[in-house]
Amino acid sequence: MNELRKDPLLNRWVAVMRESKPLDFYLSGTVSKTDQPKDTSKDCIFCVGRESETPQEIFSIKDEGAPNSSKWHTRVIPWPNYVFQIEGDLGRKAVGMYDRMNGLGANEIIIETPSHNVEPEDTGIRQMAYVLKTYRQRYIDLERDFRLRYTIIYKDHSKSISGINGHAHSKIVSPPVIPKGIKDELDGAKQFYYYKERCIFCDMLTEELAVGKRVVMETRDFAAFIPYAPRTPFECWILPKRHDCAYQNISDSEIDDLALILGSVIKKIKKALKNIPCGYVIHNAPNRMPRKDYWHTIGEDFHWHIEIVPKLRSETGFEVDSDFYVLQTSPEDAAKFIQEVR
Amino acid sequence: MNELRKDPLLNRWVAVMRESKPLDFYLSGTVSKTDQPKDTSKDCIFCVGRESETPQEIFSIKDEGAPNSSKWHTRVIPWPNYVFQIEGDLGRKAVGMYDRMNGLGANEIIIETPSHNVEPEDTGIRQMAYVLKTYRQRYIDLERDFRLRYTIIYKDHSKSISGINGHAHSKIVSPPVIPKGIKDELDGAKQFYYYKERCIFCDMLTEELAVGKRVVMETRDFAAFIPYAPRTPFECWILPKRHDCAYQNISDSEIDDLALILGSVIKKIKKALKNIPCGYVIHNAPNRMPRKDYWHTIGEDFHWHIEIVPKLRSETGFEVDSDFYVLQTSPEDAAKFIQEVR
Repeated sequence: MNELRKDPLLNRWVAVMRESKPLDFYLSGTVSKTDQPKDTSKDCIFCVGRESETPQEIFSIKDEGAPNSSKWHTRVIPWPNYVFQIEGDLGRKAVGMYDRMNGLGANEIIIETPSHNVEPEDTGIRQMAYVLKTYRQRYIDLERDFRLRYTIIYKDHSKSISGINGHAHSKIVSPPVIPKGIKDELDGAKQFYYYKERCIFCDMLTEELAVGKRVVMETRDFAAFIPYAPRTPFECWILPKRHDCAYQNISDSEIDDLALILGSVIKKIKKALKNIPCGYVIHNAPNRMPRKDYWHTIGEDFHWHIEIVPKLRSETGFEVDSDFYVLQTSPEDAAKFIQEVR
Repeated sequence: MNELRKDPLLNRWVAVMRESKPLDFYLSGTVSKTDQPKDTSKDCIFCVGRESETPQEIFSIKDEGAPNSSKWHTRVIPWPNYVFQIEGDLGRKAVGMYDRMNGLGANEIIIETPSHNVEPEDTGIRQMAYVLKTYRQRYIDLERDFRLRYTIIYKDHSKSISGINGHAHSKIVSPPVIPKGIKDELDGAKQFYYYKERCIFCDMLTEELAVGKRVVMETRDFAAFIPYAPRTPFECWILPKRHDCAYQNISDSEIDDLALILGSVIKKIKKALKNIPCGYVIHNAPNRMPRKDYWHTIGEDFHWHIEIVPKLRSETGFEVDSDFYVLQTSPEDAAKFIQEVR
């Protein structure tokens, strides 16, 4: 099994693969020969009709009364040969002064459409809603495994996974630890809540809708805006107007509205930035966070949301190391550029 | 003046340029037409003999008895049109619920050699020692400006600065805030100290030298090793054996030893990874941290060091967002690869 190791200074967990790649892996770039992107549907086992060639399906959304396995809208399969494996124990132990545990967890791939070379946002709100419903179901299911601490669902900038390219998919990673970036966010929101007794995200929503100049789009249930101090200029957050810490509590009607705003914003950003790769990450409450207690205060301090991050450029070593970013375009101007897309 | 803005959730400061770049800036890549790298010394104002064409020199190391301005070993000049300007006030204020201040601070360029297309590590220990002495002097000088909270000296992966390419240089950024990445490290070291009453870096040094399998090189005063849980496999830290929180306390004799180990390790990594760009960052105590108090405990919890980070690949959006990294090569194997370079 692969291994998780904790950086004792920053308390950041990293995954270390059991079998190291040789130096050649780095010299020839990150894509090995067998991973070469092939943009033809001929080789794509994510395509409709090739269900038997993928690993065993974990979940799918199908039309009712259509038991034929090819009549699906989305499918979820294990992500083979990534970091985590679902069977085993945590194997926590000390290694000298350090801490390690087994790479136990879930990694899955969500196939977002039956067709090749199509993104859900281009197919229409209905397909996007299927994808968002699939996310909801995976959060609900994975939360039941009490060894897993957190579930991240994200769509990467990169389209390539082990030889499958050009077929829209998202990824799920559910590790037995809370990743540091997420923990920092949860801690920050908690600190604000202790100080103000209000949710920082609800405050941001009020502020952004009042000021208006960083808002990219608003719908009945959601608002999309560029945050005041993002890491890159076109980073765009979508927040539900109704306070809730957990994505999995989203209603069907809210999913339709989210499908509208998420699809529209991605299309606008891609149009403004000439089809730049555009990923997003759902920021959700940790697994097994009690959503209701007697006083109804647990879950008050976090507010689930989606962060859309277009892949503009690679950060400099200095920026990644110091976590100090320089924005060449102001968030206000970036919002204006995106708003103006027709 | 440019602006610093604070992310209210993560307490991370970012810099926002006063004049936004238009969309074209992102579409054509990060390098604008006037910034195109030119790898010819013909156009390079960093070269010896062209001192009058650079901005006014801030500091230089020259041979004694050679007042001729062209007899220099290293020069420091302001870094024009970057983020910070040195004149002005901090202008802290609230913007709605958010916080901002002026982009006041220092940014400088250290020209590391008089000759073009040469890296100090290839010129020999003496030139590297001049560079390291220049770092020491800049830390001492910049610490005197009490508006500045932190000084980062680093060598970037990229060789390009505004049209100057192929001429070895490091950069200095001294902002009026402590960058979040640094603050996390200082906080982590402080927490360990409260718990153990020992410096975490001294503990790591003992552990790494005892275990040996992640050590890349050891000299009289320093040790270089791959940390137990780095962000990328070939990240390599150089720690002084003598505990000190501040680089600027380094002695001349220690500088000679550091020149030896830093130059050798960079050369080994570059050789192992076929001349991959190889940057480093000096992690130092914040400015104006009292180095001695009555009980001699202040400064006990941090230990300056250098982190060398070869530019292997760009991180995925998921990794940067979640701060959860996957290492395709174990630190032990990476150390072995580098050790074996002859």
